[in-house]
Amino acid sequence: MAAKTIDFYFDFSSPYGYIASTKIDALAAKHGREARWRPFLLGAAFKQTGGQPLTDIPIKGKYSARDMVRTAKFMGVDYRQPSTFPIGTVAAARAFYWADANDPERARDVAKSLYRAYFVDDVNIGDAEKTVEVCARLGFDAAAVRAGLADQSVKDRLRAEVDAAIALGAFGSPYIVVDGEPFWGSDRLEQVDRWLASGGW
Amino acid sequence: MAAKTIDFYFDFSSPYGYIASTKIDALAAKHGREARWRPFLLGAAFKQTGGQPLTDIPIKGKYSARDMVRTAKFMGVDYRQPSTFPIGTVAAARAFYWADANDPERARDVAKSLYRAYFVDDVNIGDAEKTVEVCARLGFDAAAVRAGLADQSVKDRLRAEVDAAIALGAFGSPYIVVDGEPFWGSDRLEQVDRWLASGGW
Repeated sequence: MAAKTIDFYFDFSSPYGYIASTKIDALAAKHGREARWRPFLLGAAFKQTGGQPLTDIPIKGKYSARDMVRTAKFMGVDYRQPSTFPIGTVAAARAFYWADANDPERARDVAKSLYRAYFVDDVNIGDAEKTVEVCARLGFDAAAVRAGLADQSVKDRLRAEVDAAIALGAFGSPYIVVDGEPFWGSDRLEQVDRWLASGGW
Repeated sequence: MAAKTIDFYFDFSSPYGYIASTKIDALAAKHGREARWRPFLLGAAFKQTGGQPLTDIPIKGKYSARDMVRTAKFMGVDYRQPSTFPIGTVAAARAFYWADANDPERARDVAKSLYRAYFVDDVNIGDAEKTVEVCARLGFDAAAVRAGLADQSVKDRLRAEVDAAIALGAFGSPYIVVDGEPFWGSDRLEQVDRWLASGGW
């Protein structure tokens, strides 16, 4: 029987999504669960909420840039502030869903490699060709990935996933749902842990 | 010699400010510090950042209302969502600075009682007369408090404190500054703890 899942929504340009991504599988496994990785597009969610990229906000932006680096270090996560930030993440998210359709066992590896490329190696995965290169380094055929990014079924899948995430209430990244209970932010992982242990409090 | 301080900026209408207020003194004392309580007006900060009360934001608002209650319980803090939220906090903040000028040892008690009245007993401290009542229950003379709220020097003090907080970068509540390092949110108390222990990481 497949393990019960928890849902992990994230945007590939989200520092706190990246931080959570390095912890979520172990956290789920600790409680006999599996994390279902679901990249979505924060820009689409922001249209609903009037949100905007953290670092673009006056005053708060400067704090946030500092907090991203500090929080990653606090949590023991490799992190380097990307030189281009934020970025569009359509190509990265499509690459994930293309892999999910073609080699589902490895879709998570694609996500982890894309996140690491962006937040550790300063590769601008907003550039579709860079996203293709990251996948190719994992052994995927570059031409097949490139074709996947342009494939209508992949485009439709991403659109459907984004719509579903937003319908569910995902307004930020990471957005983690445990048995219907939503948790926003890498700073809610402790609450996720306790919720998984106790089913609430 | 007076203990070295840490600065604790908060708005009286802020749930996360209230949650942090129940922890900040013990946290500071653990490291031989004293917390300097500094109420300010988040509305004034929002004019700089384009921020707005959390619960007013589409989608995010609904999540936030849930997170406030859940986080308080997670942290073992008495909490009841106020029936009027958010509220203007000019009277409450003036009461604090009036007490600070007249009976500084007890200004913190005023803040704690105001917070508890609002977030546990559902007293609308946005109403100046309710703020006076909270102070009167602490033994302050109601007429003296009432006069204090209208006193020009108290008004000027609050304005100066708000300007100083905003100049320092306080865009949210709580906003805690340790030796120049800013931390935003009750979910950053663990980072404050480690920063106080180690002077950074």
